Amino acid sequence: MNGKMAALGKSPSKIREIFEYSRGRKALLGEENVFDFSLGNPSIPAPDSVNKSIKMLIEERDSVALHGYTSAQGDLGVRKAIAESIEKRFGTAAAADDIYMTCGAAASLTITLKALCEPGDEVVVLAPFFPEYSVFIENAGAVKRVVNTVAPDFNIDFDALESAINEKTVAVLINFPNNPTGAILSADEAKKIGDILTSKSEEFSHTVYLISDEPYRELTYEAASPFMPCFYSNTIVDYSFSKSLSLPGERIGYIFVPSSCENSRDIYAAICGAGRSMGYVCAPSLMQYAITNCVYDTSDISAYNKNRVLFYNALTKMGYTVTKPGGAFYLFVKSPSGDAGEFCERAKKHEILMVPSDSFGIKGYARIAYCVKYEMIEKSIPAFKALMEEYKK
Amino acid sequence: MNGKMAALGKSPSKIREIFEYSRGRKALLGEENVFDFSLGNPSIPAPDSVNKSIKMLIEERDSVALHGYTSAQGDLGVRKAIAESIEKRFGTAAAADDIYMTCGAAASLTITLKALCEPGDEVVVLAPFFPEYSVFIENAGAVKRVVNTVAPDFNIDFDALESAINEKTVAVLINFPNNPTGAILSADEAKKIGDILTSKSEEFSHTVYLISDEPYRELTYEAASPFMPCFYSNTIVDYSFSKSLSLPGERIGYIFVPSSCENSRDIYAAICGAGRSMGYVCAPSLMQYAITNCVYDTSDISAYNKNRVLFYNALTKMGYTVTKPGGAFYLFVKSPSGDAGEFCERAKKHEILMVPSDSFGIKGYARIAYCVKYEMIEKSIPAFKALMEEYKK
Repeated sequence: MNGKMAALGKSPSKIREIFEYSRGRKALLGEENVFDFSLGNPSIPAPDSVNKSIKMLIEERDSVALHGYTSAQGDLGVRKAIAESIEKRFGTAAAADDIYMTCGAAASLTITLKALCEPGDEVVVLAPFFPEYSVFIENAGAVKRVVNTVAPDFNIDFDALESAINEKTVAVLINFPNNPTGAILSADEAKKIGDILTSKSEEFSHTVYLISDEPYRELTYEAASPFMPCFYSNTIVDYSFSKSLSLPGERIGYIFVPSSCENSRDIYAAICGAGRSMGYVCAPSLMQYAITNCVYDTSDISAYNKNRVLFYNALTKMGYTVTKPGGAFYLFVKSPSGDAGEFCERAKKHEILMVPSDSFGIKGYARIAYCVKYEMIEKSIPAFKALMEEYKK
Repeated sequence: MNGKMAALGKSPSKIREIFEYSRGRKALLGEENVFDFSLGNPSIPAPDSVNKSIKMLIEERDSVALHGYTSAQGDLGVRKAIAESIEKRFGTAAAADDIYMTCGAAASLTITLKALCEPGDEVVVLAPFFPEYSVFIENAGAVKRVVNTVAPDFNIDFDALESAINEKTVAVLINFPNNPTGAILSADEAKKIGDILTSKSEEFSHTVYLISDEPYRELTYEAASPFMPCFYSNTIVDYSFSKSLSLPGERIGYIFVPSSCENSRDIYAAICGAGRSMGYVCAPSLMQYAITNCVYDTSDISAYNKNRVLFYNALTKMGYTVTKPGGAFYLFVKSPSGDAGEFCERAKKHEILMVPSDSFGIKGYARIAYCVKYEMIEKSIPAFKALMEEYKK
């Protein structure tokens, strides 16, 4: 048996651990009396177009064709539709053969990392980061190198980024809109990333790729999130429809390897090979066909914005230090004691469930997922108030 | 970039290569004039219960719940239904927590292999074998050791199996009903495998697991295929609904770790860990719920049997050497010249597409996938006759 895998299976992520705790409390106190902000599970339904599309396919399409294998890259129709939508929305050249359909963002990442990395290669990530990055980078045999962003806005520390890239660096992995901070990039910052990666690629005489993990791309509330291939040609985009179409369980996403990428055809081939080696035969066929007509749609994101405004205003008014998130559906709240674990444990006594930031590679914060019912946020406000009172004593 | 992955992506499997060739011929000559027996893609529709189930879910279930994440192991309801069906059909104890839902058979295999193997461990496979086994074993960092079966019936060579197992052997991987030969095991053979693995586990003081890859379990035409956990307690079953429910594109299957297995909880944990490390967050949620009510159903398998009888009788009458398959939907035909490649190339001139056995790890045969329309088999018979005539000259 592989001991590492057993350990990984036995140590569920902190998020899942809280999820299990939450189930117990809800059973005891009733669903409505536990303020569970631990899970990034979309709380608004998929747009009607998705379910209409599924019903139409079931009624009209031949069963053997509908449920049969697609090509390993994915059905040509959905890849065309996605490529067209990228061209229209971002003005970047994109063709069906630049798109590889995946079983969601996690698969996009494991496949991209395995395609790019040889054992011992380094991948730079910005902290705080999605905890599974560590697992996925290790699966590719690579080594993670962490660069901290700068509080309170969690901006990129460009000097630190520059000095973290060395001759072993194969890729820099970024995630904007960010989980857990909600930060998005400005166009200036996007350009600066591109400039650094261009100069570092020259310095080390090999391409340093940018992997842009963008499951929250459409979830922005003030400015749009820059599309990184417009700012750095050697960008590979890892996408998922989990959040934009509220389909996290369906496992449907894609990898976009722009033709502008250095060695783009070889990288695309390596992506096909990596997917194949891990047993990804094709992305679920019904869901591939279903989203073909929905690539311009999103769930009703205004509901998240309503939550964001209510929650941000309420918490800051109480004295919490919170960075106003530009995207995603998370608030990143500073622990009044400076200790993330203490803050989250104390919050539990008020039936508030948050994820301590240690899981995301930095200390002193808690992540609140506000993809929940508005009423739950309203109802939780007195609990947050009481919690803050304790710190003020 | 990972050169191995790029090479893997660029060298599509032989089966896919023929598939592409087939597309070109069909465009040129018309669909009905190319006898394409290369792909194991079910040709009969999913049972009505599957599409009814999907429609019902779309109409009645809350969208957020339906398309949301399930637990990583899979929805409790579907795992219960599967466990119950195993108990009822095979008399083996099975609980929901022994089942781990996967994105199909390939994922079942890559996850099981990664959970069991440490780098350098050996996995014994029986030739002929499904070509991707080599890729999946390598992905787990393990080494494949091949044991040939014995023509014409492709029975297991038990002496060879015994001597192939050594102190490095972690598992023996079998596949009955078999792709590509259609062979199934007798109860005696199943018992003998169990006896050998028991004695070898004792000899080397560690458990040698049996991985039973069973996507064709329900596709049997004479006797049923023995359920291996009844014959060897340290069996892990890798299953897929691709063939039994004609859903290959939907990527839905499971791993069954019986509680009788040595270290079953640790192995189950390692399976969770291995799935997590490769980015398998959960199996597609809609499809998990959809099959919950269909675990006793199959597509109309009698259609395959009709094809089998027609094709087997016709080919043997012409003088081809074919082993009568007990299961799956393949005929394994001996090359009249002894050379598989020559046979398949010559057949192409008659617009007959078959897969040479070299891809499956043995020489001198061709695989015919008879999961096609009955009419196509009828229409292909003169072409097979003409092909045989050439060898008789």
